[in-house]
Amino acid sequence: MIIDCHGHYTTAPQELTDYRDNQKKELKDNPLIQHLKGEIHITDEQLRESIVNNQLKLQQDRGTDLTIFSPRASRMEHHVGNLSTSVTWTEHCNDLIARIVGLFPKNFVGVAQLPQSPGEGLEASIKELERCVNELGFIGCNLNPDPSGGYFNDVPPLDDKYWYPLYEKMVELEVPAMIHVSGSCNCTFHATSSYYLGADTTAFTQLFMSKTLFKDFPNLKFVIPHGGGAVPYHWGRYRGLADMLELDNINNIIENNIYFDTCVYHQEGIDLLLDLVPTENILFASEMIGAVRGIDPLTGHYFDDTKRYIDAAKISNNKKIMIFEENIKKVYPRINIHLEKYFG
Amino acid sequence: MIIDCHGHYTTAPQELTDYRDNQKKELKDNPLIQHLKGEIHITDEQLRESIVNNQLKLQQDRGTDLTIFSPRASRMEHHVGNLSTSVTWTEHCNDLIARIVGLFPKNFVGVAQLPQSPGEGLEASIKELERCVNELGFIGCNLNPDPSGGYFNDVPPLDDKYWYPLYEKMVELEVPAMIHVSGSCNCTFHATSSYYLGADTTAFTQLFMSKTLFKDFPNLKFVIPHGGGAVPYHWGRYRGLADMLELDNINNIIENNIYFDTCVYHQEGIDLLLDLVPTENILFASEMIGAVRGIDPLTGHYFDDTKRYIDAAKISNNKKIMIFEENIKKVYPRINIHLEKYFG
Repeated sequence: MIIDCHGHYTTAPQELTDYRDNQKKELKDNPLIQHLKGEIHITDEQLRESIVNNQLKLQQDRGTDLTIFSPRASRMEHHVGNLSTSVTWTEHCNDLIARIVGLFPKNFVGVAQLPQSPGEGLEASIKELERCVNELGFIGCNLNPDPSGGYFNDVPPLDDKYWYPLYEKMVELEVPAMIHVSGSCNCTFHATSSYYLGADTTAFTQLFMSKTLFKDFPNLKFVIPHGGGAVPYHWGRYRGLADMLELDNINNIIENNIYFDTCVYHQEGIDLLLDLVPTENILFASEMIGAVRGIDPLTGHYFDDTKRYIDAAKISNNKKIMIFEENIKKVYPRINIHLEKYFG
Repeated sequence: MIIDCHGHYTTAPQELTDYRDNQKKELKDNPLIQHLKGEIHITDEQLRESIVNNQLKLQQDRGTDLTIFSPRASRMEHHVGNLSTSVTWTEHCNDLIARIVGLFPKNFVGVAQLPQSPGEGLEASIKELERCVNELGFIGCNLNPDPSGGYFNDVPPLDDKYWYPLYEKMVELEVPAMIHVSGSCNCTFHATSSYYLGADTTAFTQLFMSKTLFKDFPNLKFVIPHGGGAVPYHWGRYRGLADMLELDNINNIIENNIYFDTCVYHQEGIDLLLDLVPTENILFASEMIGAVRGIDPLTGHYFDDTKRYIDAAKISNNKKIMIFEENIKKVYPRINIHLEKYFG
């Protein structure tokens, strides 16, 4: 079984965008408005249509089986509005994921967006995580390390006690978090390149340099997306910094807690990742249909068809099975409940 | 001749730190203080001592010849104080570089720190660049794309007209800029890992995505340090984004304007850089004595002895000569004035 741990619902019907646009319009009139959840009328037929010729078709074309699926990352936009904006928007986005999983349970399993909001605590995020895991059968969450949308001035580093209540709930529920920023409202950054990759590198660094976090939470698990940002390319720098800062060996630091996905869109980058990062810490992912949607003229295949790069990599079949399946089941243990339910 | 295009004066005598500490003390009492330059008493003997057993010894040990040398990047700290703070501090830092070049002209050639300051224009930076190039014989400058020190909220992207007066002066003087942030006052970032690498990636992205900058300044040259941040590892992502955003081919975009240094501290990273980025756009650099000062237990050699990685790379000798010498002379044409003067 080939499991893609990083897919977003980027092809949702227009009604979802209309709902969001209306929220933004309401905020323009009154930034303190307390939004009500209301309803979004999207039929099952619309959901099917939005998936069948997109993510489902690409799964089949590329030979992957199951996608760990979450709301569109760039549209989480935690920097927009107030807590009620994020809570209502997030519930709708997660509800749609649950419906898609219900329609295609053999192809998708859910991961939750969290209703983070600048200046707020994590109570609403904990509540939504419980709802998504306990009621909707989700198996993980996406955690935004910069709800300011590109100013890095709203929340403390990821090992700060601010995050601990959420981490306690994650450990209790046995779900990991992918650390994933959203769109940027800072014109310095382009969302899917400099902002994503910089935030990935920053998140890894915070976790890597923490002397307390994984002592306090030995079972807490994080996935760093987009191949870990700049980290594997600078593995020597990080190994050297670990030495200078008197940290443990980098492989020991990440061992049971930090994982990299394979959203690196060319063979040479994937080869570097596989060469340096322990296989145990690599999870297959493509993020299709996402940041880079075209066909690479050098190969004739989609840039984000990352399965091809793993297939072509000079590593053993056993290692490929770890990356495609076994590691993901270890990091997302609740996937086994889903598999038992739908695959028997 | 082997030229290292990225060295900072990280071993300056205590008197320089004392001067800076005093500036900070004055600012604590009065943030609006207009600092006077004053004097720092450091003897030639002190300067010699600070270099001979450090950078000069490592040059000899490693078999490199000439270092393009600038003030310590992490101490530029443009976010500290007001314009007069940066102007006086920068002049002293550059003066020390000029004195070291005067003492060791066969080993060092100068690159200027610029007195950027939040909320200010670039007039003072242009003036200091002129002084450093015309009076002190410097051949380039370090440009900080985030004088806020980690909040990315002070200056517009690098292709904005805000920067144009400086670029006009750079082109007129025939000097390139290395895009280099300084220390971070935002606890989100660790300076020499997440902040540097994220800013490198961001700077590259801004330049890469600009549809105007290199049309307006076809001879403007930038060096992206630390191997280009995350960029070469994500070369496929950038190639794919160029396609989606209808930009030119990435090799054409960077051809005469954007260069990567080789401050990547392990063989696999250097191999990836050399494999993907056109040789014409790679400049040898080590940043010794800098972020990572230890010995790699896997190799028994210093992490930042990047010459070893180039030496070991499976590329032709001609390409190595381009990286070690020829490309650098092309990007920093004023180095030839220095070479003629001191090497005859």
